[in-house]
Amino acid sequence: MGKVTCQISISLDGFVAGPNQSLENPIGEGGMRLHDWIFPTTSWRRQHGEKGGADGVDSEVADELVRGIGAYIMGRKMFGGGSGPWDEEWKGWWGDEPPYHTPVFVLTHHPRQPLSMKGGTRFTFVTDGIASALEQARVAAGDQDVAIAGGASTVRQYLAAGVLDELYLHIVPVILGAGERLLEDVGDPVLEPIKAVGSPAVTHIKYRIAKNVS
Amino acid sequence: MGKVTCQISISLDGFVAGPNQSLENPIGEGGMRLHDWIFPTTSWRRQHGEKGGADGVDSEVADELVRGIGAYIMGRKMFGGGSGPWDEEWKGWWGDEPPYHTPVFVLTHHPRQPLSMKGGTRFTFVTDGIASALEQARVAAGDQDVAIAGGASTVRQYLAAGVLDELYLHIVPVILGAGERLLEDVGDPVLEPIKAVGSPAVTHIKYRIAKNVS
Repeated sequence: MGKVTCQISISLDGFVAGPNQSLENPIGEGGMRLHDWIFPTTSWRRQHGEKGGADGVDSEVADELVRGIGAYIMGRKMFGGGSGPWDEEWKGWWGDEPPYHTPVFVLTHHPRQPLSMKGGTRFTFVTDGIASALEQARVAAGDQDVAIAGGASTVRQYLAAGVLDELYLHIVPVILGAGERLLEDVGDPVLEPIKAVGSPAVTHIKYRIAKNVS
Repeated sequence: MGKVTCQISISLDGFVAGPNQSLENPIGEGGMRLHDWIFPTTSWRRQHGEKGGADGVDSEVADELVRGIGAYIMGRKMFGGGSGPWDEEWKGWWGDEPPYHTPVFVLTHHPRQPLSMKGGTRFTFVTDGIASALEQARVAAGDQDVAIAGGASTVRQYLAAGVLDELYLHIVPVILGAGERLLEDVGDPVLEPIKAVGSPAVTHIKYRIAKNVS
């Protein structure tokens, strides 16, 4: 069985989204500054069909982030399409070929038939909670890892439930001052840094999490 | 002229002291967990007259922290002795021979004569603000660095004033959940990570700060 992992970019003052988030701007004001580090990397550009880019530590990390993942779990806000019953026309933010290429389990209160997209991404909508989504994702992933894709409240729920094995933070040297915090109401998990590398743009720290519950 | 630096241990969720701080317990509940990484190091033990200890990255950092510092600045709470007029018997938390071995400028609203201690530490009490304290510390330090020793509110004031050149964070893998934050009301300084190293106990990231004001 694979691990349950999560990787997320976070400001030095602990925010994973800026203030004034909305359905149209779920990342909040200034939130895109948290992701600037990845776009110039060779790895990101290659993953999105573009040539060139910068090699180095950040590109190696961008490669690492997509390796060995057999399924993703994400919250409704990250998938988009409002907060009420589904508009069947909404197929996520990513166009016809989303960058997941695996089964993706979307947490929602509103049932919907699965959606198969180009490139192997298949969205399944889970209405019976985070434990059920994790169980389904584990089966889909086989011996590969299950990645909690976000957003922040979904990560917090899995962290608080004590089922995350690894948390990989990309600590971006910006101070947002306000927004959505990641590490709030998550209890007191036992964390151990197992990797720390960085560039002038970002510092990557991977934490192993001792399991609180089995 | 040397740099103006600050090094401080901080929880992964951004606290530099735990909740329920008091004059008797300025570090707050659980706050001592932020400092556990340094006590077993060879460097710390040697600095405090003890033998043995653990070598490695954390000990090297503990060495680095005391190198090249010509003067310190600290807030009244860090020096201790209550918050009102001085009890002349109070000479800080550190006994007869404090670990600074340089001039130390203490920010306070209450005048007091300087205090010369064993081992070269001399406490000067500054009542006319952080700019004056920095000016006096720069003169005392000569071409060595001035270190802002703490506490958090003193660091925040110097950071917000745009006069810090380096911020060296020891990010401890604990989640305190509450307490005193470091990076709040400090504006939007331009930070660049210039070093990232770590052990299973802590990750050290040194940031260079672009000057906002001269």
